[in-house]
Amino acid sequence: MKVSVVRNILEANDRIAQQNRDLFTEYGLLVINLMSSPGAGKTSLLEKTIDALKSDVRIGVIEGDIQSSQDAERIAKKGIPTVQINTGGECHLDGNMIRDTFEKFDFENMDLLIVENVGNLVCPAEFKVGEDFKAMILSVTEGDDKPSKYPLMFHESKVLMINKIDLLPYTDCSLDRIKEDSLKINPDLRIFQMSCKTGEGLDEWYAWLLERVKNREVIL
Amino acid sequence: MKVSVVRNILEANDRIAQQNRDLFTEYGLLVINLMSSPGAGKTSLLEKTIDALKSDVRIGVIEGDIQSSQDAERIAKKGIPTVQINTGGECHLDGNMIRDTFEKFDFENMDLLIVENVGNLVCPAEFKVGEDFKAMILSVTEGDDKPSKYPLMFHESKVLMINKIDLLPYTDCSLDRIKEDSLKINPDLRIFQMSCKTGEGLDEWYAWLLERVKNREVIL
Repeated sequence: MKVSVVRNILEANDRIAQQNRDLFTEYGLLVINLMSSPGAGKTSLLEKTIDALKSDVRIGVIEGDIQSSQDAERIAKKGIPTVQINTGGECHLDGNMIRDTFEKFDFENMDLLIVENVGNLVCPAEFKVGEDFKAMILSVTEGDDKPSKYPLMFHESKVLMINKIDLLPYTDCSLDRIKEDSLKINPDLRIFQMSCKTGEGLDEWYAWLLERVKNREVIL
Repeated sequence: MKVSVVRNILEANDRIAQQNRDLFTEYGLLVINLMSSPGAGKTSLLEKTIDALKSDVRIGVIEGDIQSSQDAERIAKKGIPTVQINTGGECHLDGNMIRDTFEKFDFENMDLLIVENVGNLVCPAEFKVGEDFKAMILSVTEGDDKPSKYPLMFHESKVLMINKIDLLPYTDCSLDRIKEDSLKINPDLRIFQMSCKTGEGLDEWYAWLLERVKNREVIL
C-alpha cells in the first residue's frame, strides 16, 4: 500500500520533470541537479563556479532549502538570477517546485541553470526535476564508506565531486576507496577531486563544465 | 492529498512507536534514537560509548542503514547484541522496523538500547521509534549554518553532540553560532562538544548518559 503510494508519487513527478526538461531543451539550457549531504559544499562550489564562468556563461540558480534563504542570499550577491525554494519540511526538490520558479527566470538569456537540492544523501536521488544530469558532492570528512552505504545517489549521478581534500591529512578517509567503490556502483561516473577552500582541482571542473555548456547538443 | 497521506503514515507510526515504548518501559530499558547527517560520527560515538560503559551497562544496538552491514559489523566486534536493519531505500527508521528486531534481543538482560538511524538530517526527525529521547550529532565540518537550515532535527532532539572539534582549526565553523542558533530553536537542548578521534569531551557525555541509565525513572 505504502509502496504503491510512493510509486504513484514518483510517476507523477517523472511526468512533470519531463515537461520541465522539454522546456529547457527548447531554450537550449543545460540544467544540473546538484546534490549532497548537508554541509558537503554545494553552495561553496556554486560560488566558485559562478566566479569562474560568469563572464563566459549566463548562469541561473535555484536554491532548495527546507527553511531559510541564507544560500540564495550568498548566490544572489554574485549578481546572477537566483530563486529560493523553501520546501517547508520536504526532504528533496521535485518537478513541481522547479516549475513554480519558471516565471521568475528569463530562460531566453540563460545558458546554464544549476539546481541546488536540499542537503540529503538519500531522497533527492529518487526525484527528477528536469535536469540534463545529476551531480553530487561528497566531502572527505564524511568518510570513505559512503558509496557502499548510500549507493543510489552514486548510481544516479553523472558526476561525483570529492570535496574538502585539504582536510585529507586530518582524516582516515581513503580517496582510492571512494573512487573504487563509486565506480563499482556506476562505471561511467566522472570523478573530480577538489577543495573549494584552497581552489585545488577546481580548474578541471570548470573546463569540463564549460565544454558541456558550449557543446550541449553534441555531447549530452 | 499528499499531505493527508503523509499525516496518516505519521499517525500510524506514532501508534506503533507508542507500543514499542510501552514494552521498553516494562523492561526498564533506556532507548536512544541517534541521528545525524551521513558521516558525522554516529558509529564512532557508539564504539567509544560501548568501550567506556559496557562494564557498567548492558547495551544493545540497532543499526539502521539503507544497505550494507558495515556498521553492525563494527559494533558487533565489541561483543554486544547488535541487529542490522537494512531499509532497502527508505531514508529513515520507523516503529515497525524496530518492532521487527525484538525477537532477536533479550531485553530482560539489557539496560540501554541505542538505535543508530539512517544518516539523514531531515526525515528521521519526523518518525518516533519508541525512544525515550532523540540525540543528534553535528560535525563541525558540516558548518555552523545547519541549525537554521535543518531546524526540525534540532527541535526534536534532547541532546546535541558537536563532533570532530579536532578539525575546528581547519574550518570556518563557529561553535558559538551552532550553540546560539540551536538553543534558539530548542532552549532545553543539552549540548556536548567532543572529538571521537582524540577523545576530547567524551567523558562528560559518558557521565551524563550513565546517570540517565542508572536513574532512568527518576530523571526522564
